[in-house]
Amino acid sequence: MELFWPEVKELVIRALHEDLGQGDLTTMSLVPADAQTRGIIHVKEDGVIAGLRIAGLVFELLDPALCFTARVQDGDQVKKGDVLAEVNGLARPLLIGERVALNFLQRLSGIATKTSRCVELVTYYQARIVDTRKTTPGLRALEKYAVRMGGGKNHRFGLYDGVLIKDNHIRLAGGIKQAVIQARQAISHTVKIEVEVENLAGVAEALEAKADVIMLDNMSAETMKEAVHLVGGQVLLEASGGVCEESLVEVAKTGVDLISIGALTHSVRSLDISLDVESIKISEQKN
Amino acid sequence: MELFWPEVKELVIRALHEDLGQGDLTTMSLVPADAQTRGIIHVKEDGVIAGLRIAGLVFELLDPALCFTARVQDGDQVKKGDVLAEVNGLARPLLIGERVALNFLQRLSGIATKTSRCVELVTYYQARIVDTRKTTPGLRALEKYAVRMGGGKNHRFGLYDGVLIKDNHIRLAGGIKQAVIQARQAISHTVKIEVEVENLAGVAEALEAKADVIMLDNMSAETMKEAVHLVGGQVLLEASGGVCEESLVEVAKTGVDLISIGALTHSVRSLDISLDVESIKISEQKN
Amino acid sequence: MELFWPEVKELVIRALHEDLGQGDLTTMSLVPADAQTRGIIHVKEDGVIAGLRIAGLVFELLDPALCFTARVQDGDQVKKGDVLAEVNGLARPLLIGERVALNFLQRLSGIATKTSRCVELVTYYQARIVDTRKTTPGLRALEKYAVRMGGGKNHRFGLYDGVLIKDNHIRLAGGIKQAVIQARQAISHTVKIEVEVENLAGVAEALEAKADVIMLDNMSAETMKEAVHLVGGQVLLEASGGVCEESLVEVAKTGVDLISIGALTHSVRSLDISLDVESIKISEQKN
Amino acid sequence: MELFWPEVKELVIRALHEDLGQGDLTTMSLVPADAQTRGIIHVKEDGVIAGLRIAGLVFELLDPALCFTARVQDGDQVKKGDVLAEVNGLARPLLIGERVALNFLQRLSGIATKTSRCVELVTYYQARIVDTRKTTPGLRALEKYAVRMGGGKNHRFGLYDGVLIKDNHIRLAGGIKQAVIQARQAISHTVKIEVEVENLAGVAEALEAKADVIMLDNMSAETMKEAVHLVGGQVLLEASGGVCEESLVEVAKTGVDLISIGALTHSVRSLDISLDVESIKISEQKN
Amino acid sequence: MELFWPEVKELVIRALHEDLGQGDLTTMSLVPADAQTRGIIHVKEDGVIAGLRIAGLVFELLDPALCFTARVQDGDQVKKGDVLAEVNGLARPLLIGERVALNFLQRLSGIATKTSRCVELVTYYQARIVDTRKTTPGLRALEKYAVRMGGGKNHRFGLYDGVLIKDNHIRLAGGIKQAVIQARQAISHTVKIEVEVENLAGVAEALEAKADVIMLDNMSAETMKEAVHLVGGQVLLEASGGVCEESLVEVAKTGVDLISIGALTHSVRSLDISLDVESIKISEQKN
Amino acid sequence: MELFWPEVKELVIRALHEDLGQGDLTTMSLVPADAQTRGIIHVKEDGVIAGLRIAGLVFELLDPALCFTARVQDGDQVKKGDVLAEVNGLARPLLIGERVALNFLQRLSGIATKTSRCVELVTYYQARIVDTRKTTPGLRALEKYAVRMGGGKNHRFGLYDGVLIKDNHIRLAGGIKQAVIQARQAISHTVKIEVEVENLAGVAEALEAKADVIMLDNMSAETMKEAVHLVGGQVLLEASGGVCEESLVEVAKTGVDLISIGALTHSVRSLDISLDVESIKISEQKN
Repeated sequence: MELFWPEVKELVIRALHEDLGQGDLTTMSLVPADAQTRGIIHVKEDGVIAGLRIAGLVFELLDPALCFTARVQDGDQVKKGDVLAEVNGLARPLLIGERVALNFLQRLSGIATKTSRCVELVTYYQARIVDTRKTTPGLRALEKYAVRMGGGKNHRFGLYDGVLIKDNHIRLAGGIKQAVIQARQAISHTVKIEVEVENLAGVAEALEAKADVIMLDNMSAETMKEAVHLVGGQVLLEASGGVCEESLVEVAKTGVDLISIGALTHSVRSLDISLDVESIKISEQKN
Repeated sequence: MELFWPEVKELVIRALHEDLGQGDLTTMSLVPADAQTRGIIHVKEDGVIAGLRIAGLVFELLDPALCFTARVQDGDQVKKGDVLAEVNGLARPLLIGERVALNFLQRLSGIATKTSRCVELVTYYQARIVDTRKTTPGLRALEKYAVRMGGGKNHRFGLYDGVLIKDNHIRLAGGIKQAVIQARQAISHTVKIEVEVENLAGVAEALEAKADVIMLDNMSAETMKEAVHLVGGQVLLEASGGVCEESLVEVAKTGVDLISIGALTHSVRSLDISLDVESIKISEQKN
Repeated sequence: MELFWPEVKELVIRALHEDLGQGDLTTMSLVPADAQTRGIIHVKEDGVIAGLRIAGLVFELLDPALCFTARVQDGDQVKKGDVLAEVNGLARPLLIGERVALNFLQRLSGIATKTSRCVELVTYYQARIVDTRKTTPGLRALEKYAVRMGGGKNHRFGLYDGVLIKDNHIRLAGGIKQAVIQARQAISHTVKIEVEVENLAGVAEALEAKADVIMLDNMSAETMKEAVHLVGGQVLLEASGGVCEESLVEVAKTGVDLISIGALTHSVRSLDISLDVESIKISEQKN
Repeated sequence: MELFWPEVKELVIRALHEDLGQGDLTTMSLVPADAQTRGIIHVKEDGVIAGLRIAGLVFELLDPALCFTARVQDGDQVKKGDVLAEVNGLARPLLIGERVALNFLQRLSGIATKTSRCVELVTYYQARIVDTRKTTPGLRALEKYAVRMGGGKNHRFGLYDGVLIKDNHIRLAGGIKQAVIQARQAISHTVKIEVEVENLAGVAEALEAKADVIMLDNMSAETMKEAVHLVGGQVLLEASGGVCEESLVEVAKTGVDLISIGALTHSVRSLDISLDVESIKISEQKN
Repeated sequence: MELFWPEVKELVIRALHEDLGQGDLTTMSLVPADAQTRGIIHVKEDGVIAGLRIAGLVFELLDPALCFTARVQDGDQVKKGDVLAEVNGLARPLLIGERVALNFLQRLSGIATKTSRCVELVTYYQARIVDTRKTTPGLRALEKYAVRMGGGKNHRFGLYDGVLIKDNHIRLAGGIKQAVIQARQAISHTVKIEVEVENLAGVAEALEAKADVIMLDNMSAETMKEAVHLVGGQVLLEASGGVCEESLVEVAKTGVDLISIGALTHSVRSLDISLDVESIKISEQKN
Repeated sequence: MELFWPEVKELVIRALHEDLGQGDLTTMSLVPADAQTRGIIHVKEDGVIAGLRIAGLVFELLDPALCFTARVQDGDQVKKGDVLAEVNGLARPLLIGERVALNFLQRLSGIATKTSRCVELVTYYQARIVDTRKTTPGLRALEKYAVRMGGGKNHRFGLYDGVLIKDNHIRLAGGIKQAVIQARQAISHTVKIEVEVENLAGVAEALEAKADVIMLDNMSAETMKEAVHLVGGQVLLEASGGVCEESLVEVAKTGVDLISIGALTHSVRSLDISLDVESIKISEQKN
């Protein structure tokens, strides 16, 4: 569940290419080829960090001689003003990579921070916070990683590693029971079956069908409480649908096992992080 | 400034591959190969739409026979409940593509909607709303397109198509004047030079250096007003730094030409859009 | 669990490029550009077919005007001499694509045929035949598809969609129980946990640890029978390790739920299939 | 005729991505990040090795700090129990890479072993064993390399580096002679022309047409002997069609120069090779 | 020896992406989305055409609805003023694709034209004009195709489909004879062996070694004549080294079989071709 | 404006793959695996060098242990016979990479040399030499880099980083003035607007429309002089259309600011550069 680095590298190269195109007009015009500098990455608000190694990779790909030193680790809680990392080396690649490195770091830290806030809110309940498939196209592996760094759990990664039977599927299969049986026969024995239900009757039917997980879709807290009672720990229960930070505790109090929140990844404020170039030294040979 | 479709196609294929992996376990287990259906994409809150053709491409790539009919166009203002598009055809590819299509459409419409709100706020001022390079890695072309759909203007696309001289560059070049001259010599004659300044002295110096655009970095509204007065229309003035929807009008009132807002792309709430499968018809041969 | 066609297309293009390089010297030298022909793909031994649509795609990519008509479907049992498909159109692309189309079709049909033989051997037992991760690098999706076409079931696709705890993992976690608990906490709630054990004590421990599936590694039929008795249907049991067609029935008789066979994909004889060009008609304009 | 490593690297990355997806759930859940270990790759049956450096590359791509030490070389004859290589370093990447490394190594060694057996059978004859284009799509370069490691020779790599005129081509060109002349005019002067014939009349005609190589297609040993006599060393003769290990010596005795065998690559049993993790040491800081 | 279109398509997409980036600022700003037009591609000097279908593909990839009609074929001799093709459809994609289409067409036609001039010069001699590996990186398949369109022959495509033994190789192998023998043993029997020699002694040695082709490197016409005499038609002779249009006839007169000319591809003047947009019609709905 | 190396690396890998295919038959047959050698790259005519680091990258990608030492730098003026670089290491990768390295180096140096000649011709005038978009598809970044190395300036890189309004655009927009206004509104404020005009009336109109640059298309020197007079330094003037080395000084004398020359990249003679392998040492262990 760590990142697969050859893939991350490809994402970073694409991002660099996207920003850099045929070159950084400003830096190449104004910064001498041999100017050295130090960049300090610090955070301008409290939060949880994710993506530091990716930021480091940005600089490494631009110039393997740039020295990137992390001062904190992914998953760390940081305070406004904390230094996250230091980059030393030639000024050109450092200035060129700044924006791309921050774009990754800020977005992923934004996700980790939001997740962490949610996780903290339910500390005293048994519910775990899980993400969804509502991620940025192309960045799912990174965003789900950021959720983990924030203390959240990952739901299935895609359509391929978990079964989630929704109303359309149920209708087609002729009922919850038939749907679960049909899916069980078709899929690998290593994958669980989750069924989305909309009321207590659905819960009962899913239970009888031996679903592995039941998703309570947009139910009231009251109904969810009854569902928890009905299920009595036989299968996992996941609350889903429009849960926000405000309603989170109320949902957790119902006793569900999992609460999935799409906004962890689809509606995120980037964490405010910046890179300050402390001083630029032009090598002495130059002068 | 339209999208380059072979590139969009590549992004969509990556996104599909990311979500689909070796297959949609649920749909392939439960939905008959010949079941037909109709999906209705509608919006659940007011907003501005961007990405409809990309959503259509998702379905087309999964099954060229799926018929995607847009009911509105990118850039259109829509109301809660409006139907955006209809998809008709086999149920399997329709259900499989749902999430990826919505992930593109919701994020881009979120950007267009936020941009549109900002643009509307400054309707009666001369300032234009512009974006920044604070975009999601790999999706810049799409996100800048969404900004345009929301009525905003694009700032430079990357480091390669515009010069933006910041404090670090100025320090290295020995002052604003030298920096502008040096850049002018190095770059193509088709590209303008923008200089970031922090106070009125900087404005004056940049003006003298014949910069094409001056960026007023984190200045108070008061100072910006003076800058506008000082410049007297000789060059464009761009307000930048921490502008949010609340402070936007105040900034616009200063008379600047451009207001750049990173949050247009780095901190966006997805627009709430969903796809409802109306009814599933299993073809008669089956029965 | 169908194939993701944009990915298959990429595999086919690579395969064509690999075989075709800068061109088919023989065909381009000797076959007139407008010669028309018909190719008949027939099978030269009994078997089960897989990969027909991929073969069709080979021809379609070389010339969209080539008309490929399948006479049987993937998964069909065929007899020596049966016609599998017909290709009509220009002789050049038809002759050029022949080998690549057959290379896909023969290998996948070889896998489907072998799987089918195994499945048939255990028809009267409850055991299902499953594959492994011992697939050809780069072709896993296709080979697992061929296993399904042969009537087999797929085990997990990769390291990412199922947990399989082996002895090394157990040793590190301090025992089966700890390993299962630790894994349960780390992974998504949608994925099952399978534990590999080597003796009955291991079975008992895994059972107690609430593993979802227990793999009986290289056990004698006698021991497996006892394991089946011990488990009493509480969890799934998978027999694994060196099972071949000869020993299959004996293993199935033990009452295990699953029998995994690496040789389904790592040691396969291609099914003998050939393409005969019936007659070549040179278009009349030519003469 | 060595491998082109940037291409092999791409194949390995694809294979890793295929197996690893978003991560190895088991290893990442259970193996501490700093656990060290040693893996021993040994062979469980006699054979010839091919692909060791590719196996090493698998580990290197997962973690450049993993130390892979080969104990034998590609092309070496090994005995059951021989150690092929040792891998030292972090336990996580070692366990993660195991299956992909073995999948390459076992398949290629399977090919090398089978080739070697064939080569040995004809040691005392002048015939050389050559492969065909019946290779796994996408892996031709690797599989032809394995044939070389087994002591075999490569036939043409694809349609682009040799001319092989078959019956269809001959029919179209109006006879063997015309076909050879026409091909000679069309192709580069660096490439030879081989003609497939089905009887002695064809041999005579190809000889007269000055073909460079004559392929004897599915002829009886008797007829091949006559062909050898007829040709008298003027051109190379290749026996082709359904030759298996059993009939190989009989074919070699006819005096042909080359014997091509499709099964070298299309129907191979993987060599039984495994990786044993000897002991896992958790670094002391951990404790 | 036709082009492999999926590969050409990839080249064209790259070229479009390179020129188009995030969009054609001028056309998208000024040309209405529904404006229709007709473009006429005509040639402004005499020459031989190559690359017309590639030019057509450029437009097709930008807009499948653009109608590209070729008026001549690749390989045709054209006169100043001749119309090569017509493109009808939307003005935007037509204007956007113009430069990329011409860049391919002009360069390839430049190569075809130069080749054709050389071929014509030696019409009455037996020598054929062949190209070299001195091609533009990434465009070899296209440039060798253009040589064929100009009436030239292709030498080997790369290092992989022909043996060319040069002085360094000879020195290492201990002489021409040993080199030829060693190569013969190592390579496929489908590939010929060419040896580069610098004097008549070399010719004699290569002849004795049974090389298939002898390259006469930088020899005087006189020496070449003697080589032709010495060889007496037993093997092919290729003249190489600094042959230009001026010296071509003299070289051809020596009686060599092949004359290779690097400048066919490494030093080419593009053929002057332009696209004129005849008239732009804005659809009536617009008005 | 330096090159983006991950992209250059991809171009080099493609070029190597193109030339190398499944391997260098000659070198692998004849050069021992452990033979060491030294290659000297020297230039056989006067010129300006571009692409040395790319040549070095070719060797590095084939064998990271090859030691490439540049003796001059890109942009340096060199004399016939000068040594450009030295490569030391294994003979195989050195011989294999020779042609690809030279293909890049010769073409780019050809461009730099031609550019440098043009730049020198106008030394005493204010005009700067600029390139065009008439570059080799796929190699624009490299070719524009070579122009800079030759002392030239780059015009816009593509359709995306500059506006160039041509006659078609003007006609559509209803005149120069409207076109400039319309473009100004549509594009980013960081990009300049250039207008192509055919006569003095056009110059006056463009001036009034506040175009940033005016392109004088195919005007006589006389007219251009008048244009320079008319404009009086208010905007930049670019001479364009059929300028060759012969007419260059005459054009420069008119006083224009920029002279664009398509032939800098579309019609280039490669600089004559070769690699000599000095001596091949076979390592002692071998003997």
